[in-house]
Amino acid sequence: MNMIEIITKKKLGQPLSREEITCFALGAADGSIPDYQLGAMLMAIRLNGMTPQETTDLTLAMRDSGDVCDLSAIPGVKVDKHSTGGVGDTTTLILAPLVAACGVPVAKMSGRGLGHTGGTLDKLESIPGLSVSLTEEQFVRQVNEIGLAVIGQTASLAPADKTLYALRDVTSTVDSLPLIASSIMSKKLASGADAIVLDVKTGSGALMETVDDAIALAGTMVDIGTLSGKPVRAIVTGMGQPLGTHIGNALEVKEAIDVLSGRTTGDLLEVSLLLGSHMLVVNGRADTVEAARALLLDALRSGAGLCKLRELIAAQGGDPSCVDDVSRLPRSAVIREVTVGREGYVARMDAEALGYAAQAMGAGRVQKTDVIDPSVGYVLHVRIGDHVVADTPLCTLYARSEADAARAEAAIRAAITTAEDPVSKPPLWYAIVTADGVERV
Amino acid sequence: MNMIEIITKKKLGQPLSREEITCFALGAADGSIPDYQLGAMLMAIRLNGMTPQETTDLTLAMRDSGDVCDLSAIPGVKVDKHSTGGVGDTTTLILAPLVAACGVPVAKMSGRGLGHTGGTLDKLESIPGLSVSLTEEQFVRQVNEIGLAVIGQTASLAPADKTLYALRDVTSTVDSLPLIASSIMSKKLASGADAIVLDVKTGSGALMETVDDAIALAGTMVDIGTLSGKPVRAIVTGMGQPLGTHIGNALEVKEAIDVLSGRTTGDLLEVSLLLGSHMLVVNGRADTVEAARALLLDALRSGAGLCKLRELIAAQGGDPSCVDDVSRLPRSAVIREVTVGREGYVARMDAEALGYAAQAMGAGRVQKTDVIDPSVGYVLHVRIGDHVVADTPLCTLYARSEADAARAEAAIRAAITTAEDPVSKPPLWYAIVTADGVERV
Repeated sequence: MNMIEIITKKKLGQPLSREEITCFALGAADGSIPDYQLGAMLMAIRLNGMTPQETTDLTLAMRDSGDVCDLSAIPGVKVDKHSTGGVGDTTTLILAPLVAACGVPVAKMSGRGLGHTGGTLDKLESIPGLSVSLTEEQFVRQVNEIGLAVIGQTASLAPADKTLYALRDVTSTVDSLPLIASSIMSKKLASGADAIVLDVKTGSGALMETVDDAIALAGTMVDIGTLSGKPVRAIVTGMGQPLGTHIGNALEVKEAIDVLSGRTTGDLLEVSLLLGSHMLVVNGRADTVEAARALLLDALRSGAGLCKLRELIAAQGGDPSCVDDVSRLPRSAVIREVTVGREGYVARMDAEALGYAAQAMGAGRVQKTDVIDPSVGYVLHVRIGDHVVADTPLCTLYARSEADAARAEAAIRAAITTAEDPVSKPPLWYAIVTADGVERV
Repeated sequence: MNMIEIITKKKLGQPLSREEITCFALGAADGSIPDYQLGAMLMAIRLNGMTPQETTDLTLAMRDSGDVCDLSAIPGVKVDKHSTGGVGDTTTLILAPLVAACGVPVAKMSGRGLGHTGGTLDKLESIPGLSVSLTEEQFVRQVNEIGLAVIGQTASLAPADKTLYALRDVTSTVDSLPLIASSIMSKKLASGADAIVLDVKTGSGALMETVDDAIALAGTMVDIGTLSGKPVRAIVTGMGQPLGTHIGNALEVKEAIDVLSGRTTGDLLEVSLLLGSHMLVVNGRADTVEAARALLLDALRSGAGLCKLRELIAAQGGDPSCVDDVSRLPRSAVIREVTVGREGYVARMDAEALGYAAQAMGAGRVQKTDVIDPSVGYVLHVRIGDHVVADTPLCTLYARSEADAARAEAAIRAAITTAEDPVSKPPLWYAIVTADGVERV
C-alpha cells in the first residue's frame, strides 16, 4: 500500500478503508512512514475529518500497534474510567476504592500530569513507598486479590499513538476530534477494560472549552466504543473551576482521604459518585444510576471505600498509615494563608491558570522529564458563587520558598475575579452521552 | 517567529503576513523547519489555499532564498518564456532564435525533462559538443554578443523551492495552484528576466488537464507578476496531442531546424509564432501581436532565425554544421516504419502516454539521475482529425534495439485511437491571460 495514495484520498475527502488506516497507523509506529508524510496526513485529517468508522479503525489499529493488556484472568466485567484531564480532579482516588468496595474489579492504568493538569500516578507516588510499576502479572494478581490496582501505562502501549501524539503537538493538529478521540480510546482499549466510563471535561481548564465541543468529543468516543463492540458512555462535567479544593499531589491525596473518611463533601464527591455510579451500571452491578449511587454511598459511610484505599496503598508498597494520619504525607516548607482582600461574589476561577500556578510551584511538569515536588500546591477556600469579604480566606499556599509563595499568590489572585452582583454556581455536569444519544441536564 | 503559529493560521484559513511566509520559505531553504512541519504546512496550503498576495509573497521569498541572476548588464527588456511542460514541445528552439533575430535579447534559463515531458537542455545537449553550463558572466557576455544564450538553472536558484518541490511530490500536495504557480514563478523571477511569457499547456499531456484549470493557473501566475511589478502574460495552449511531430531529443532538434529552414510548417510553428509574438509585444519591440508575427515571419523567411540558431550552437561549443546537415545529429541503431493498420479518423492521441513511450525508449528519465539517449524517439505521421487507411504511415521509430522498437510500437498504438466518423482538429490555443483579464478564443 502506498502512503501517497492514502494521503491523496484523505486530501480529497474520501473515506479510507480499514487496510489503509492500518497501514498509516502501523507505519507511524514502526517508523517506516517518513515524518513529512505523517505531518501532511495529520493536517489532511484535521481539515477533512474522519467518519466514525474511520476513527474507530484508527483507534483499533493504534491499539493493536503495541501490547494489549489481557485481563481475562480477572473474572467479571472490568470497567475503566478516563478523564480528559482537569485541575483538582482527584475522582480516581475516590471512586476506584468505592467501586472496588462494591465488588466491581478496578484494573486501572493511569497517566501522569503534563501542562496544567494533574495525573493520578503523580498523586499516588506522593504516598511514601508507593510504586505504580507493576508487571502485568502482578497487576492481574492484585486485582484478583483486593479488587483494585492502579498502574502506569506500559511503554509498549499504542506506540502508533505515541508517534502521532508527539507530531500533533508540533504540526498544529491537536484540535482534531477524530485524532483526540482515537488517541484516548486506543490507550483505553489497549489497557484491556471491558467497558469504559469517560469523564469529558468542559470549561476554562479543559481540553474542550465549550459544552458543545465536549459533547462532540464524547459522541466520537462513544461511537468508537459502539463500533468496536465495547460499552462506552461519557459524562460531560464542568471544569470552569477546579473540581476539588486541593491542587497539588500530596494535597490531592489528602483531599481524597478526607472525602473517603466522610470529613469532606462537595463537588469532588458528587462527581466521583456520578462517575462511579455509571461504572457500576455498565458493569451490571446496579440496574440504575440511583441504585448504584446508593451502593457507593453505603461503601462511603461504612468506611469500606477508605479501607479499600488503605489496601491499595499497602498492596503497592506504600505507607497505609497515611490514610489515618495525613500528616505523614509530604509537606512543604512554607505554608501561608491568603485572604480575598475585597468584598463581592466569586465570579470566575480560571482553572487553566490555577493549574499553571500549581505547576509553577513545582507540582507539575513543563517538560516530560521534569521531576515534580509532591509536597507543594495550595488549598482553595472559595468557589464560584461564594460571597466573600476582605477577610475571607482565599487559599492556603504550600510552597518551597517565600518567593514561590509570593508568585503563586499573584497568579492565583489573577485567576480569580469577583463581581458586585450575585453569581450562580456552575453546573457540575452538562450531559450524558451513550450509544442511545445525548441526554443534556 | 514560531512555525506552529504559522501552520495554525493557515489551518484556520487566515491569511499569512509577508514576514510569516518569508519565515516559512527561508526555513525550508536552510533546513531549520523540520520536515513534518513542512508537510503539515503544505497540506494546509493545499486545502485552504492562498490569496494572490500570499502567493506572491511566497514566490518572492523563494526567489530570494538563493541567487538571483543579475541581467542588468544586458541592455533592453529581457523577456523569458516558460512552458509548463509538454510532449513534442520544441517551441524554445524555434522562437528563441527568431525573437533574438528580431533584436530582442533572449537570456534563457531552461530545465531538463522529467517524467513524460521533455526538456530544452536535454535537446540542446544532443548537439555534439554543445554545453549548457555557462557562468553568469559568460551567459551575459554571450547575450550581449549574439543576442541569445540558453543555459541550465544554477544549483543555487530558489533553494526553498527545491525543498518544497521535493516534499510536495511525496506529501500529495502537487495539485495546489498557489504552490505550482509560486514554484514556477520563483525560478523565473530568480533567472532575472524583466518580463515573462508563459505557455500554460492543457490536455492529456499537461499538468493542467482542463482548460479551466489551466486558465486558473495562468491567472495565478499573472497575478504574481502584477503584484511583483513584472509584466507577465500567459497563453493557454493545447496539449491534447504532441505539439510537434518529433518526440525525442535529437529528433526534436532536427524538427526545430526543419521549421527554421522553412521545410516544415504546422502546429509547432504556429504556437512558436504565437508565443514569440507576445514576447516581442511585452518587450515593446512590436505594438501588436499581428505586427510582431510579421517581424518573426520575416526572420523565418530571410533565414535570420536559422542563422541565429547556428550562432547559438557555435557560441556554446556545439557543432554548427548540424544546422545544415541534420544527419550529423545522433542517430539510433534501429529505424522502423509503422503503419496505422486500419481505416478511420484519428480521434485521440494521448500525449502523456506518448511521452512515456519515448521515455521508455531512453529519451527521458525515470529518476533524476538517469542518463538519456539523445538518438532515440519517434516521428508521428498523423494528427487528430486525419483520415487514415491501413497503409497510412503511423510513425517512424528510432530505437536502440528491435525489442525497444516493438515495445514502443505497442505503446504508441495504444495511445492513438481512431473513430469511424470524422473528428475535428483541436484548437491550438484557448485563452490569453494578462493583467487585464482572460481573453478566450
